[in-house]
Amino acid sequence: MVCVVAYRAGVIGASGYTGAELLRILHGHPEIEVVHVTANTNASSSVAEVYPSLGVAYPDLAYEAFAATDLAGLDLVFCGLPHGESQIVIPAIIATVGHVIDLGADFRLPAPAYEEWYGTAHRAPALLEQFALGLPELYRDEITAHDHVAAPGCYPTAAVLAMAPLLASGLVEPTGIVVDAISGVSGAGRGLSLRTHFGEIDESVEAYGLLSHRHTAEMELVLSKVSGTSVQVLFTPHLAPMTRGLLATAYARPNTAGLTTASLLETYRAFYADEPFVAVVDEAPATKATRGSNAAHVTVRFDERTGTVVALGAIDNLVKGASGQAIQAANLLLGLPETVGLTVVGIYP
Amino acid sequence: MVCVVAYRAGVIGASGYTGAELLRILHGHPEIEVVHVTANTNASSSVAEVYPSLGVAYPDLAYEAFAATDLAGLDLVFCGLPHGESQIVIPAIIATVGHVIDLGADFRLPAPAYEEWYGTAHRAPALLEQFALGLPELYRDEITAHDHVAAPGCYPTAAVLAMAPLLASGLVEPTGIVVDAISGVSGAGRGLSLRTHFGEIDESVEAYGLLSHRHTAEMELVLSKVSGTSVQVLFTPHLAPMTRGLLATAYARPNTAGLTTASLLETYRAFYADEPFVAVVDEAPATKATRGSNAAHVTVRFDERTGTVVALGAIDNLVKGASGQAIQAANLLLGLPETVGLTVVGIYP
Amino acid sequence: MVCVVAYRAGVIGASGYTGAELLRILHGHPEIEVVHVTANTNASSSVAEVYPSLGVAYPDLAYEAFAATDLAGLDLVFCGLPHGESQIVIPAIIATVGHVIDLGADFRLPAPAYEEWYGTAHRAPALLEQFALGLPELYRDEITAHDHVAAPGCYPTAAVLAMAPLLASGLVEPTGIVVDAISGVSGAGRGLSLRTHFGEIDESVEAYGLLSHRHTAEMELVLSKVSGTSVQVLFTPHLAPMTRGLLATAYARPNTAGLTTASLLETYRAFYADEPFVAVVDEAPATKATRGSNAAHVTVRFDERTGTVVALGAIDNLVKGASGQAIQAANLLLGLPETVGLTVVGIYP
Amino acid sequence: MVCVVAYRAGVIGASGYTGAELLRILHGHPEIEVVHVTANTNASSSVAEVYPSLGVAYPDLAYEAFAATDLAGLDLVFCGLPHGESQIVIPAIIATVGHVIDLGADFRLPAPAYEEWYGTAHRAPALLEQFALGLPELYRDEITAHDHVAAPGCYPTAAVLAMAPLLASGLVEPTGIVVDAISGVSGAGRGLSLRTHFGEIDESVEAYGLLSHRHTAEMELVLSKVSGTSVQVLFTPHLAPMTRGLLATAYARPNTAGLTTASLLETYRAFYADEPFVAVVDEAPATKATRGSNAAHVTVRFDERTGTVVALGAIDNLVKGASGQAIQAANLLLGLPETVGLTVVGIYP
Repeated sequence: MVCVVAYRAGVIGASGYTGAELLRILHGHPEIEVVHVTANTNASSSVAEVYPSLGVAYPDLAYEAFAATDLAGLDLVFCGLPHGESQIVIPAIIATVGHVIDLGADFRLPAPAYEEWYGTAHRAPALLEQFALGLPELYRDEITAHDHVAAPGCYPTAAVLAMAPLLASGLVEPTGIVVDAISGVSGAGRGLSLRTHFGEIDESVEAYGLLSHRHTAEMELVLSKVSGTSVQVLFTPHLAPMTRGLLATAYARPNTAGLTTASLLETYRAFYADEPFVAVVDEAPATKATRGSNAAHVTVRFDERTGTVVALGAIDNLVKGASGQAIQAANLLLGLPETVGLTVVGIYP
Repeated sequence: MVCVVAYRAGVIGASGYTGAELLRILHGHPEIEVVHVTANTNASSSVAEVYPSLGVAYPDLAYEAFAATDLAGLDLVFCGLPHGESQIVIPAIIATVGHVIDLGADFRLPAPAYEEWYGTAHRAPALLEQFALGLPELYRDEITAHDHVAAPGCYPTAAVLAMAPLLASGLVEPTGIVVDAISGVSGAGRGLSLRTHFGEIDESVEAYGLLSHRHTAEMELVLSKVSGTSVQVLFTPHLAPMTRGLLATAYARPNTAGLTTASLLETYRAFYADEPFVAVVDEAPATKATRGSNAAHVTVRFDERTGTVVALGAIDNLVKGASGQAIQAANLLLGLPETVGLTVVGIYP
Repeated sequence: MVCVVAYRAGVIGASGYTGAELLRILHGHPEIEVVHVTANTNASSSVAEVYPSLGVAYPDLAYEAFAATDLAGLDLVFCGLPHGESQIVIPAIIATVGHVIDLGADFRLPAPAYEEWYGTAHRAPALLEQFALGLPELYRDEITAHDHVAAPGCYPTAAVLAMAPLLASGLVEPTGIVVDAISGVSGAGRGLSLRTHFGEIDESVEAYGLLSHRHTAEMELVLSKVSGTSVQVLFTPHLAPMTRGLLATAYARPNTAGLTTASLLETYRAFYADEPFVAVVDEAPATKATRGSNAAHVTVRFDERTGTVVALGAIDNLVKGASGQAIQAANLLLGLPETVGLTVVGIYP
Repeated sequence: MVCVVAYRAGVIGASGYTGAELLRILHGHPEIEVVHVTANTNASSSVAEVYPSLGVAYPDLAYEAFAATDLAGLDLVFCGLPHGESQIVIPAIIATVGHVIDLGADFRLPAPAYEEWYGTAHRAPALLEQFALGLPELYRDEITAHDHVAAPGCYPTAAVLAMAPLLASGLVEPTGIVVDAISGVSGAGRGLSLRTHFGEIDESVEAYGLLSHRHTAEMELVLSKVSGTSVQVLFTPHLAPMTRGLLATAYARPNTAGLTTASLLETYRAFYADEPFVAVVDEAPATKATRGSNAAHVTVRFDERTGTVVALGAIDNLVKGASGQAIQAANLLLGLPETVGLTVVGIYP
């Protein structure tokens, strides 16, 4: 049997966790082959040395220093660079490759919002309009109408999937929304820091980025689009002692009478009826049920006592919150079935 | 030197986690000696067999089946039974012992609130007025004016210490309060359940008890007392893969203009100036900093953008959230310095 | 495109961890479809209720009570029952299904060895000769020559793959071998026990089954077959606070002069040159590199100072140590390529 | 009440984990007060900033850059520097302070053994004879006969306490000994490294330092002293995903007939009869039972089948394996009861 893979891909910044996760998932993708990986800090190391988990699958692949010419002509390029670096690198390649899927924050926000939340002017504002936000459930048309995608952050993915049916239906007020979320440590990447040192975060929970986490801007952007009005969110991220997993618990006030948990669940089931990766579940979802998969599990409650809607969403932050969703969007860009190469089955336990 | 311990104590239900934690802490208490421990399911086992961690300290102590006569005459009795059992057992001993410190939920709420949240009538309502809520920072006078104490739950302790300065000062509205909290697994006790099976909760985060967790009633009770008006709370507990630690993140709307984070921190420092176990910290607290200690670390923020106050409190759920706080209250009952036998130093890392 | 799955499978005891793992992996297997699952304790529950991680993949599958007639005619039946139960159930189905792959211990050992290590006579000794041991790397011919397979235990799989090249080459003495191994908690299954309670095993390491763990017999059986002489092993299993992963560290004395680490690694690379699932690695392997995959990572050292060979093997206990290996063997039974439906890529981090 | 603490102490390198653990334990020591702490990388930071867990206990203490003159005149100085640094710093202070207790490796081995295992000549060999090895159970006389102490490493402490009764009684052969041990991650300190990154070691077990870990030399030194003959050990350390805890499983061959598990346990109980910190337990010990305490739990087995003795020892690597044991030795140096300020009660769960 001769196996012909249709598309040739490169991964920039492939030695971080999202890069490794792209390599893991794409190894099982029948239509995309990874042919070039860059990692400036690990240049000249083999993938097997840096990630023994990938060694059997990629015995001959080695990281190379980034060079735009090496990527020219590829069908698609995933970019897993830290925030701020994509906007420097992508202008050098965007004209010479078929599709760019950026996993960083650089091409998600309009230039003014970017400057407001990141405290610095965007370096490539003219390119922003070439990127659709890579959240297929809510931006499917935009993705297929663009060549390039900026995959959203992990927190926005979970929070927005949990709340979108509420705002799309106009069932809650667009202000006073609180998103309280808990993430595994891998969201902070493979870079060394005291916060991600085992002795510090093991057996501990803490909040961070109080009032000012930049994913707030993405949540507001997407929910405003969904609702057709300006949405305001207060977001508190927490870190928990687990590697993967992200749970968002969101609170909103109804702007209509007569809500019930049953009616809200029905709204959710209708909203996500055709979505292969979103499961509306009856019970409060555990992040572990989504581990290693591209699934999002969401549920919703109406609390009559306090008049509050509570919505919950669970994902694997490295899959649906990053690399899996990027591949889901890439499938759309390539005209492939959206589910190719992706699983909905969590690795449990 | 002859060392005379002043008070003789018993522990009912001493084979659970709060019971074991009482034995651990009381071993280092210079004025209280544990002379009798009961555990119906482990009757006739030695403490060393059930908890090797306690074996060197209590080489000759064994669990016995509960018998009221065995406890008669003790200076104080701690009760670590599951909810619903204290109200059966305590009536049989309360008249014959000096002080009862109940760590369960049976004597925390007024009878009507108990019935509302627990779905069953209280079996010993006449005894309720003999118990003060054992939260010394907010009920010190009540404790010293009573003979017996009902130690509050772990979630209410963290949430209420985080929010009390706001409500005592009338700085936030008494409704629309959201408490989103994360607990270690030991809060569920040593009893076996699928939820606490290692394979299920390891590497996972989940919410539970949505809208209806019974600790809501305790939060509302205490905060209403503190504020002098009826307070309403929506509470969402989460479970994280760690044994100990509890973090509450609370949201409230200001009912006054001109709040700032700096002014709120100043309010907090003044409120807790004389409290040996409450530390007002600048940074978001990590639960691990309180591990094994009776300390609570709290902080507060004002978000100008959304007009919301965010308050955070971290404790060790088994110490300040249970056994340590019970001993703190016992010290008050006995007229001892409140800090005797308790530490403020967390076991870190 | 019409997708026709070639083989119809059933899973007995499908609500345990190995059963769930079979469902997870088989969902991605292009030639095998799971059509019937039994679980006496969860009969009438849907798979989605018992394992939300599988809900999207198996929306309509429900557990049923075991009935031999329900399984008759299936191409293959996996059996994930606890030890002792397979020998009762399998006689009722073996004649009516194509292939049985038992994941328990009942059909691994000859009847005398079974009786010696399990303390009870085997109930179906006549069937034993119909089963090959399902360790393809060492029993490939036996598997293809039989209709049925008894997949080996997790500890034997790791230990034996780590040591087989030594014994096959006659490089070490067959006695005085020590296997010291560390397993994740999922090896103990989903059943409730104090040992697998989160509060007990989290942040703790302990040995268990000292001198007498039954997997010793499997190690001796396989290594004796490989070496052609009677091998004796002292085995000490340990439990570590992780869900998946198993590392075996084995010690043996050379029976030849001139060994070096380099020569041993060369022997290993030659021995496993054609094995798709065994990677001989230079560095000490981490279990995490194999997580979720069917790979085994092995390495070896010769310590000149003490004259000892040290061999290490890492696997995911639920995949290569159980369900993945069972599917690998099933592929052989069905005449499929051995790697179909199985991955060598670990989920990392 | 006026409380006069008898001894004034300094801690060099006090911002690492062993330094923080010294501060934690010494806060509860009635006779020793910490008055000066140095930490070159954290100089000018308060202890509360670097360790919020210590903030309430040490509100006014700040780290200072090391200066020998600042320490002159102190009754005792603990040194928690990385290997290689103590031998540079201690010569500058040893003549001006009462006692030095070094927690690093620099003063544990004779100069030739140091050079052999550390690959470099010792810089202060003349001082070595002023140090006793700080393992009170086996070096009590040496400690009281010296002014200074080199506290042994965590692995040697656990392994040696597990095996000492065997070698002291001449029951096992002095060669062919294997020590296989598992440690929590805190043993690697607070310094950042990929190995201690949460994403890497969480949910993973791995061996490291194969054949060449330097603690081998300490084990051989101590066991040779205990046995009166030259002992050889092959040592394999493993890392497990927990912060604290260390378990050593050791294997040795008997050199006498007639051993039984019962007789060995009797030998152990007699050997440790007067030791306050060593508990001989019947069951395989869990590291968690010793967590936060200075206790060591040991047990032993004789395997008739293979003719092997198996000995196990569990400790908290930061307490009995480092800071607690250092304080135990300091008590001896000061003529205090050995147990002052130390607990035998583990924090469980």
